[in-house]
This record gives sequence, C-alpha cells and structure tokens, in this order.
Amino acid sequence: MLGYGFMGDAHANALRTLPQFFPDAPEVSLDVLVGRDAAAAGEAADRMGFSRVETDWRDALDVDVFYNLGPNSVHVEPTVAALDAGVHVLCEKPLAPTLDGAERMAAAAAASDAVAAVGFNYRFVPAVRYARELVEAGELGELRHARFRYLQDWLVDPDAPWTWRLDADAAGSGALGDLGAHSFDLARYLVGDVDAVSGHAETFVDERVPEGGGDPRPVTVDDAFAAHAEFECGAVGTFEATRYATGRRNQHAFELDGSAGAVRFDLQRLNELEVLRGDGRGFETVLVTDDDHPYGEQWWPSGHALGWEQTFVHENYEFLSAVADGAAFEPDFGDGLAVQRLLDAVAESSDRREWVAV
Amino acid sequence: MLGYGFMGDAHANALRTLPQFFPDAPEVSLDVLVGRDAAAAGEAADRMGFSRVETDWRDALDVDVFYNLGPNSVHVEPTVAALDAGVHVLCEKPLAPTLDGAERMAAAAAASDAVAAVGFNYRFVPAVRYARELVEAGELGELRHARFRYLQDWLVDPDAPWTWRLDADAAGSGALGDLGAHSFDLARYLVGDVDAVSGHAETFVDERVPEGGGDPRPVTVDDAFAAHAEFECGAVGTFEATRYATGRRNQHAFELDGSAGAVRFDLQRLNELEVLRGDGRGFETVLVTDDDHPYGEQWWPSGHALGWEQTFVHENYEFLSAVADGAAFEPDFGDGLAVQRLLDAVAESSDRREWVAV
Amino acid sequence: MLGYGFMGDAHANALRTLPQFFPDAPEVSLDVLVGRDAAAAGEAADRMGFSRVETDWRDALDVDVFYNLGPNSVHVEPTVAALDAGVHVLCEKPLAPTLDGAERMAAAAAASDAVAAVGFNYRFVPAVRYARELVEAGELGELRHARFRYLQDWLVDPDAPWTWRLDADAAGSGALGDLGAHSFDLARYLVGDVDAVSGHAETFVDERVPEGGGDPRPVTVDDAFAAHAEFECGAVGTFEATRYATGRRNQHAFELDGSAGAVRFDLQRLNELEVLRGDGRGFETVLVTDDDHPYGEQWWPSGHALGWEQTFVHENYEFLSAVADGAAFEPDFGDGLAVQRLLDAVAESSDRREWVAV
Amino acid sequence: MLGYGFMGDAHANALRTLPQFFPDAPEVSLDVLVGRDAAAAGEAADRMGFSRVETDWRDALDVDVFYNLGPNSVHVEPTVAALDAGVHVLCEKPLAPTLDGAERMAAAAAASDAVAAVGFNYRFVPAVRYARELVEAGELGELRHARFRYLQDWLVDPDAPWTWRLDADAAGSGALGDLGAHSFDLARYLVGDVDAVSGHAETFVDERVPEGGGDPRPVTVDDAFAAHAEFECGAVGTFEATRYATGRRNQHAFELDGSAGAVRFDLQRLNELEVLRGDGRGFETVLVTDDDHPYGEQWWPSGHALGWEQTFVHENYEFLSAVADGAAFEPDFGDGLAVQRLLDAVAESSDRREWVAV
Repeated sequence: MLGYGFMGDAHANALRTLPQFFPDAPEVSLDVLVGRDAAAAGEAADRMGFSRVETDWRDALDVDVFYNLGPNSVHVEPTVAALDAGVHVLCEKPLAPTLDGAERMAAAAAASDAVAAVGFNYRFVPAVRYARELVEAGELGELRHARFRYLQDWLVDPDAPWTWRLDADAAGSGALGDLGAHSFDLARYLVGDVDAVSGHAETFVDERVPEGGGDPRPVTVDDAFAAHAEFECGAVGTFEATRYATGRRNQHAFELDGSAGAVRFDLQRLNELEVLRGDGRGFETVLVTDDDHPYGEQWWPSGHALGWEQTFVHENYEFLSAVADGAAFEPDFGDGLAVQRLLDAVAESSDRREWVAV
Repeated sequence: MLGYGFMGDAHANALRTLPQFFPDAPEVSLDVLVGRDAAAAGEAADRMGFSRVETDWRDALDVDVFYNLGPNSVHVEPTVAALDAGVHVLCEKPLAPTLDGAERMAAAAAASDAVAAVGFNYRFVPAVRYARELVEAGELGELRHARFRYLQDWLVDPDAPWTWRLDADAAGSGALGDLGAHSFDLARYLVGDVDAVSGHAETFVDERVPEGGGDPRPVTVDDAFAAHAEFECGAVGTFEATRYATGRRNQHAFELDGSAGAVRFDLQRLNELEVLRGDGRGFETVLVTDDDHPYGEQWWPSGHALGWEQTFVHENYEFLSAVADGAAFEPDFGDGLAVQRLLDAVAESSDRREWVAV
Repeated sequence: MLGYGFMGDAHANALRTLPQFFPDAPEVSLDVLVGRDAAAAGEAADRMGFSRVETDWRDALDVDVFYNLGPNSVHVEPTVAALDAGVHVLCEKPLAPTLDGAERMAAAAAASDAVAAVGFNYRFVPAVRYARELVEAGELGELRHARFRYLQDWLVDPDAPWTWRLDADAAGSGALGDLGAHSFDLARYLVGDVDAVSGHAETFVDERVPEGGGDPRPVTVDDAFAAHAEFECGAVGTFEATRYATGRRNQHAFELDGSAGAVRFDLQRLNELEVLRGDGRGFETVLVTDDDHPYGEQWWPSGHALGWEQTFVHENYEFLSAVADGAAFEPDFGDGLAVQRLLDAVAESSDRREWVAV
Repeated sequence: MLGYGFMGDAHANALRTLPQFFPDAPEVSLDVLVGRDAAAAGEAADRMGFSRVETDWRDALDVDVFYNLGPNSVHVEPTVAALDAGVHVLCEKPLAPTLDGAERMAAAAAASDAVAAVGFNYRFVPAVRYARELVEAGELGELRHARFRYLQDWLVDPDAPWTWRLDADAAGSGALGDLGAHSFDLARYLVGDVDAVSGHAETFVDERVPEGGGDPRPVTVDDAFAAHAEFECGAVGTFEATRYATGRRNQHAFELDGSAGAVRFDLQRLNELEVLRGDGRGFETVLVTDDDHPYGEQWWPSGHALGWEQTFVHENYEFLSAVADGAAFEPDFGDGLAVQRLLDAVAESSDRREWVAV
C-alpha cells in the first residue's frame, strides 16, 4: 500500500472489517506500506497493521495486490510498473493528473492480466447500488434528466490555508478532478456514456497562505465548475462541484428523472434513497438497510445506518473477490479513463467557451 | 382586464382579498373584462365581479388600469396601446413572444408616464423577499453560487395532450419562457445582472395528440433547458427548467451561497426559507410568517401558512399603491425586457453551442 | 356574526372567497356584525363588508345564519338563543368553557331543526381529508397507533404578556381547550371514539404582566398537557399540546400507524401528507393539490400550495351547502360535545392522577 | 465475552476498529468466547478473533474484562460472579429481566472495585453527546418538554414469527425493556431523574407461530407502551415505544424544548442534530461530524457520516479507558438500576391505571 493519509486509513479500516461481515472474502495479509518519510510511515504501519515499510515503491512490488493511495502525481509510474509486473492494482481516483497519464495507465491495464481497479467508492454505497438496480430493472423508464452535484464548503473560510489540493501540478485540477470525478463516474454508472459537454470552471480566490503562515501561494486549480451534458441515451445532464458551498459539508447528490419514476440521493444522508415509482404521487424516503437491499444482509438488522467508511468494505470485497476469482471488476481503468476524458472535456470547454464532444 | 383563465382567476381573487388585509390599499372597481368569446367572458365576468364585457380590447382602454393576462401572443399590441393612452398596465410574463415585441413594449413604457408592471409574482413570496432582505443586509456576504431550477412534471405522461403552450407561435418558447422566465427574474432580483450564458434546450417528445383526439400536432418549443451563467457580481449561476421532472409538481427553487451565509427556497414549501448564517453549522428552517417578516403583520399569527394565491395580493398591493402614489414599481418593463434578453441569449446559445454575452 | 377578531377575519375572508372557487355555493349577504364596542365594530364592519352593527346579540338574531366567533365565554347563551329561534349556527371551538355549557348547547341543537356546526376547521385541510379517505378505504388497515400533537411557542418568551387566554374564567382551559380540542376532534374524525384517557396538565409560569404593564396577573389555565388514550377500535393514542414548544410556531401534527399503511401530517406543511402504503418501504411525501385530491379541482393547477385561510373556505362551503340543502353537517354540536367530554376527562384525570373513562 | 449474536458482532467489530481511530485506547486481546453450543461458538470465535471457547461461563472468568452480551435471562448470575471476582464488566441492557435481579447486580457493583458498565450505546452517538453538551452549557435554558420515542416496525407483519423477545420469561418485557430502556437512559442522561410516571402498555397480537412453523406460542410481553412523566427539574416528559410503527425501521428519537433553545434527534439520521438557539427562528440541521464535535477529530473529515456501529467504538473506548485508568464510567450499574426502576414503574402504572412515584 502506497500512502497512509485519508485514503490509507479508509482502506486499512475496510480490510480489517471485511472478514467479520463478509466471511467469504479472500484472506488478506498487510505486507508492506510505502512512504517517503520512513519514520512517519513506520508509525502508520504500526497503527494500521503492516509488517514492513519501504520508502521506494520499486521495492514494494513483490506482492499480489498493490493499493496506490498516494496523491495523483504519483499515480502513473508505480501503477504502470505494478501492472507490468502482473500485480493487481487498486488506484485511487482520479486516475491521473493528465489525460496522457490516464491513457498510459489504461494501456498498461489492457496489456496486463491483473485486475486494475479505480477507487470510485461511491458506487458501493448501498443506496447508490439500489438506484442502479432500479434503473436496470426499468423502474424509472426512459431517463430524461440526470443532475449531479458535489458541494463542499472548506474554502468558504477566507483564511482556509493553501494546500497541495490547490496546486495544478500536484492535483491536476481542483473541484473538477477531486469532486467532479466522482459525479462523472456515478453518471456513467447510472445513466451511461456522455456524448458532449459544455462546462465552465471558476477560481474565486487566487492565492492563499499555507498552514503555518508565510507568503501566499497561488491557487492554480478551479474552485468550482458547472456543466451541462448530452448523454448517449438522450438524457440531459447537469453537473456542478464546488468547495465554496456554504454549509454543505459533503453534499454529493444526484437526481434521475425517468418516464416511469425518479430517484434522489444525497451522501449526507447516505442510508437513504428517495424513490418515486410510476403510480406514486411523491418521493418515498427509503432507508436502504433492509436484508434485500445491496449488502443489507451482511450487516445489522434493518434501520441500523451504515457509515461512509463501509463503502470501502464493499469496494474491497468486490475487488478482492475479483482478484481471487480471476473475474472482472468495475470500475476498472477503462472507467477511470472515461472519467478522465470527461474532466478534460469540461476543462477544454471552459477554455474554448463552447461545447466539446467526448 | 384581458383574459379570464388561470391568471385572471389569480388576480381577481387578489383584488377581492386586498381590502381586508391591506386596508391602506387603493380602492379598486372591476370595470370591464375582455374576451373574444362574449358568452364565456360574460360568465367569467359574473363569477369574478366585473360590470361589463368587451370582445375587442380596443373598446376597453377607457380605464385607469389595464391588466393584460392573455397568452403571450396578445401581450404586445394591447399593452402598447394602453401605455400610449396613459393607462397603467400590469402584464403577465414573459413580456412578449419575441425579443422584438418586448423591446417595443419597453419603449412604450419608457415613453409613458403610466406604471408598467410585469407579473413576476414570485418576487412577492414572503420567503423570497426575506431572502432579498438578507442579501441586501450583507448577511450572505459576497455571493459565489446561485442555483435556480423550475421543475414541473405535466409532460412526463406520454398521453398528456397537445396544448397551445407547446406551440412556438402561440407561446414563444416552452419551459424556457414559461418557467425559466421566473427563474431569471428572481436571479436578477436576488443576485443582479447576468453577463453571459451558456444554454442548452431540448425537446424530448416531438408531437402530441390534442385534447379530444385527432391528428398529432408538432411540439415546436423546448421541453426543458439547462444553462450556466456568469453574474456581473462574479457569482456562478446555474439554471434549469423542465416539464419532465417526474414527481415535481411545481418545484421552483433556488440556492444562494455567499461568503458569509446561504439560503435555500422551494416553492412547494413556500412559507419556508432555509437560512445559514455566518456562525451557523447548518441550514435553519425558518417559517416566514412572523410579524417582522415581509407582509407578516398583515396576515395571521405566526405559523399560519399562506397560499400561493396570496403572492398576487402582495403584488397587486405594491402595484396599485405605486399607481396611486405615482411611485415606481418593480419589476417593471425594463426588468421584463432584461429577462427576455436572457431567454433569447439562452436560445441563441443553445443554437450556436457556445456562450452568448447578454 | 358575533366577533371580529382572528376568527372573524378568517370567516369574512372565506365568505368573500367562496363564490369564485365554489360557484355552486349558496349566495351569502353579510348583514349584521355584533360587538360590544360600537365604534370598533363599525370599523370592522366596514373592512369586512357588513351592512350594520349591533352591540347586543339579542338584536341580531333576525338572520338565517349566525356565526358565533366570540371568546368561549359568550358561546353558550347567544348560540342557544339562536338555535331556539331556528337560526343556523356556526360556533367556534371549543364549544363552551364548561362541560355543562356544552351539554346545554348540544341539547338546544338536538331540539332545533337548524344546522349547528362547530368550527373545527382542520377537518377541511385537503391533506387531512385525504388521510381520512385513506383510512376509510382501508388503505391503512387496522389502526394501532395514533399520535396527535399541537405545539406552539408563544409563551416561551418569559416576557410574553398576560392575555384572556391565560384566564380560566374567560378561556375555560389553556393549551388543552385551545389546541388539544383540535387534536381530539381530528382524532375522532380519523380514528373514532375514545374510551378512556390518562392525562397530565401543567402550568410552568404562574403569573404574567399584562400588555402595557401593571401588576402581574395569575395564569389559571394549563400551559401544556400530555395524555395517552384507548380508542374504541383498539388503537393506542397519545396527545400533547403546549404553548412552550420552542421554535414550533404552529405544529399541529398527527401520525396514524395501521397494519397496512401509515400517514403523517404537520400543519406547518399543510399541503403535504406523508403516506406509506402496504408495499412501500418508506413514507411518500404527497403534495395534496392534485385534481382528484379533496377540493383540488376547485383551485389552482397541481403543485400550487393553498394557505391555512382556505380551510375556512372549505368549511363554509360545506356548512352553507348543508344549510341550503337541509342536509347534515359534520362536525356538529354532538361532535363538539364529544370533544368537550374528552377535554373534561383529561382535566379530571390530571387532577385524580388516574385513568378516566369517557 | 458471553454471547455472539447481534451484540457480540457489534462489540467485536468495535474492539477491532478501536486501535486505528483511538490510538491511546488500551490494548485488548480477545481471550475467550462463551456459548452453550460449542460448535457454533467455535465458529463465531474464529470469525470474531477469539483464542478459545467455553460452554460454561464459570470457566471464563479468568480474564480482566467480561462482556455479558447474552439475553437478559443470563445477565444476573455471571455478572454478579464476575464483579465478585473483581472482573470488570460491560453488560448489555436492560440490566436484568426483573427489578430484583437489577438490584442484586447494582449491589454487587457497589461492593466491587471493578468497573460495572451497562451497554446504553446511544449515549455515544456524537449527536446525542452534542445535545448533552448544549444542555450542560445552558444553551437550551430551563427544560420544559422532553419527548422520547423508539418506534420499530418488525411486528407490523402479521406473519412475523414468534421469538424469545416475545416471551416474558426470556425477555423480561417487550418494547418497554428492549426499546424504552434506551429512551429512559437517554432521558436521564439529557434531562435528569424522573419523579413519577403514568404508563400504558399494550399487546396487539396475542400469539404468533415460531419460525419454521408449529403451534402458535403466546406473546407474553408488551408490543408497545406510552407514558408521560414528571422530571425532577420540572420538565414534562412523554415516552413511547412500539414494534408496530409501520414504516419506522428504527426511529429512536427525542426532542428537548427549553426556555432558550431546543434540539431534535432521530437515530435514522444519526449524524444529524436539529438545533434551535435563542435567537434562531427555526431548527438548524447540524451534521455532527466536525472536528470540534464529540469524537469528530478521531474520524474522517467533516461531512463524512459515521455508522451506527461506531457508537460501540466510542462506548468501548470510554469503558476500556476507565478500566485502564481506574476511573469512573457512565452509564454504570446505578444508571442501569435507575432505568430498571423506571421500566418497573411504567409496568406497575399500566397495571394500576394510575401514576406511580419512582
């Protein structure tokens, strides 16, 4: 495992939780943790339960499965090397800081027998999977509208410090790649491919002072973006993401309107899906924790809410099962590349101020 | 008063309700109702309380105040004639079926001493006015995001009949002019002028059978549109309207995110405004019925919800007071024209598939 | 009409609104307004549209219909006199300050051919009537739980002034009669008769200063009550009302849980009913404004919310139609008396600290 | 650890999760799992990570800490023996099937130096602790109303099978002890002690067929109860619990109304607390996941919802820290006994149909 920050914690917790609730999941042993700072990595390895630490990822590919959880800027090389070595990979999203990098990764995945998974964990929220079940069963009919938004508020504060997430070289893009990538992945998962987009990216505050003070550093990524899109299936899509949505801590939300029904979801109430069926007069608030809901049987009795962290349990269950069974896993690097193309198209459309075909 | 359909009912009810709750409102007598079908108009006049009926509007301009509540196609001529004759006018929205017509109306208004009001009644929802008070008092700080949507569902049903609202000649446009016009007016009221828009209009179903059967007739207006926009103040705007939003009977909604606070509104809960202030951690659901809320003192004790129909009471109160006092009224034909330009810009942007400056 | 306060305004507005939306309602002319203060009553009569004023109700019974909208303390005598004279009566709730008074009124009603209506206007909220339709159609199955609450907050403020509503002689009781009466009426309307109650009344603040200052005056009514009850049908009921519910301006709410479905209502969102049907997984939020909803066809298109004030239009429509047709009207004085017995039983139970059979 | 059902899973998961998120928690090794069925217990021990299995709890008290997670009927003996042996105990709720048993347990706890914890895990929901912080900081002022409800729906289905939870001998009571116990504990935690209660218990369905068929067996516990109560602090309390609340999977909810503010909570949205402060006009929906919220710093960034299961992590953190530090822990057996007395008082009140002092 490369990286022991936010995502490292999330996956380590998931791997430890997996055996109790998914007894048929493959057994995992946590071998090596990779980090440039040996001391810090050693401490994290203790806390997270890894046997050893390496400071160079090249020394850590003698494993069955490689988790690339570092910042985007270190996604390409180690991942390609792992795949070339036949090591299965789960790489966090977005796939790469540039489209070119993403294409190299997808090519490596195509040329390898290993499973190449991209970490779009929101596909593994039970309510989101339930929405997909409804779409696939035709319960929503023909989709006309799909609205996606991912609103956060951590930059509303004018004194919020500069971080690597505000730097184009380290992060690739801002709200677009960090938040929009999740929206576009769910859009493809739930609605299908996008033909064309018209997007608009905006940076509200041009520079910020790093944590601990010093000279302000420039903000070189987008603070927010908005886009509309044409889906292959004929639906009209709208997308928006921002770090300036006052009061929305983490509103990853979507609405799908079809000719026979509709659904609404908000990550801040992640155990709920609002569902409207053909003969309904309004949206029904469904607590997606029943035994026949996705993953419902594995957990607690109905009505006991799961946390955000358990999406990683589901994701790892599917990923590791695919690895063990030699089966396909979705979302794979093809999906990751498709999202990357959408991000790129939005950025290009924003520059050219016109629609861009995908 | 020209027209005795939906809007005729709304204004007649408002004029009758006004004296009890706004005792300082000017007195009104309902003189003449104009309709092409003398019998039907006569019946409506009885029900609504008018003294006489005319079938030609030219015979009905011997009044102080003229309400033009007919379809868009009859907005221009009678309204211009009334203004030229010095008669005060309240004209329903959108101002005209074409930008050219709207410009003629605005020119007539500018050249006349009469009050020229356009019927954007949602400015008169207490919660909307309260939102505006918060913006003007600086409670939201600098605005960054403004989201507007107007979702209806009456065309989701594949068997919904063809009506004049689906015909470009009669209606000018579809969701754009019917619903989007309200959104753009509120956007200008709450956020300010728009510099540029990128819009996308869509027609999902190309023809429908008229009520009572017969050959299908073509749908020549948009069923839905989506747009993003740049406001003069630097905020990013998103707009969407549709008649295909399954389960949303009448969701006219907006969200304003500022550096110091935020608000959210949904017409389906028109007595509520969700408010987030600087030191708040989440949105507060405010029932906008207190005595110190807009128009609160005129009505019932706190907590007694008003209906949609009372927005017309407030609108007429302001309009008639302006007429009586020789004072200015907003929204006026300048506002109506500004909205028309925005509608036109969205349509043009949709055709050219690029941004259009306003 | 006796009384021109809050209820006077509500009924006058309703009578004026009725003809436009209910064209088959009987015609009404506003004859005489009764008030002890001739000048104030004269002013109100002008505003509300009455032809004349009397200061003694005895001089005002030369009418077809008598509205008794005064405080509880003047409910009994004028109402009984009117009924004895064969005049139809609509009397505001609760029927009388004492059970004895209510019994006299019910006896007078029984002995008279006139219609004797009691003003439980919440039966005429479309969402409430829709709930009743669902119960009657068996959509909820066998009822097990019925929860009623009526929460207000106007006494939370320690400086809220003393009013006649806090005086036992003038008001009969406090939250119990003022708010609880509405709950008990809806309980009987929706669930049926109550066999026994166990109640608890509480007064939090013993004295308050009248508006304008002076010596504090004692609060001799209940500030709040809570009760549980056994319904004849086997359901368990809970009831609560208070004037000390911080932040609840007017939360008149109920929940009905049956073996096949459930509903939830809150007056603060009076156009909505939350409905759960047999095969549902959660509550559906229904906007009760469709054409086939109660009174839906008389008003605006779907999705246009009605105000609290329109419940009086519906109530007057039913009442005046019954008067004109010589038909029965509910809720009648028998219903008013039944509620009074429940209020009395709660008070007695609170004193004796044990269950009381009704 | 005695028991490996629902609660066994919850605690095992918590103990495994603890080290990563609470690095200063004492280290734990899972020694012995107790179960009457050796084979089943062995399988559970494997899954949960225990070293050995015993079929008699008497052979398992050679430990530092004993978790009694069995049904109520096996709470008393093993727990008293453990405490007598100086072994720290965490016992699930309610403390015992009878008041007598609970008193024996509390006496054993008082006589022992060991920590005696009772498993009221809802005290460890961040939103609940935040509510308590607000109460203690005086943000709600003087409390007037406290409403508690715990609604479930698993017996609405007429074919739901008979289980030990419906048997008085095994379970002590029904909704009262299973659900009401949680409510009464939170009531004491948030509002304080109760002076007197008036309660009403009801059984709707008298017999049910066990899973797998056979003769119906009698339901000898309550299906539901309702109660009102007087708190020592002067507040009026209402309580209700049921297994017949159609559509409410797990609605453990409370509302506290004070002279200066109010809060509302619903376990189905366990990351949210609705808060009204003195100058607020309505309830603010707070996502209780910020760094300065209870336990917020230990977990994910703001806005990432925790699951129900993590309440056990917090509970175990506090319990094991108290064990390691020789510190006090709440809720202890005194709290467990106090709740038991309240349950008993409700049952007695229901029988005698009058108030019972506690």
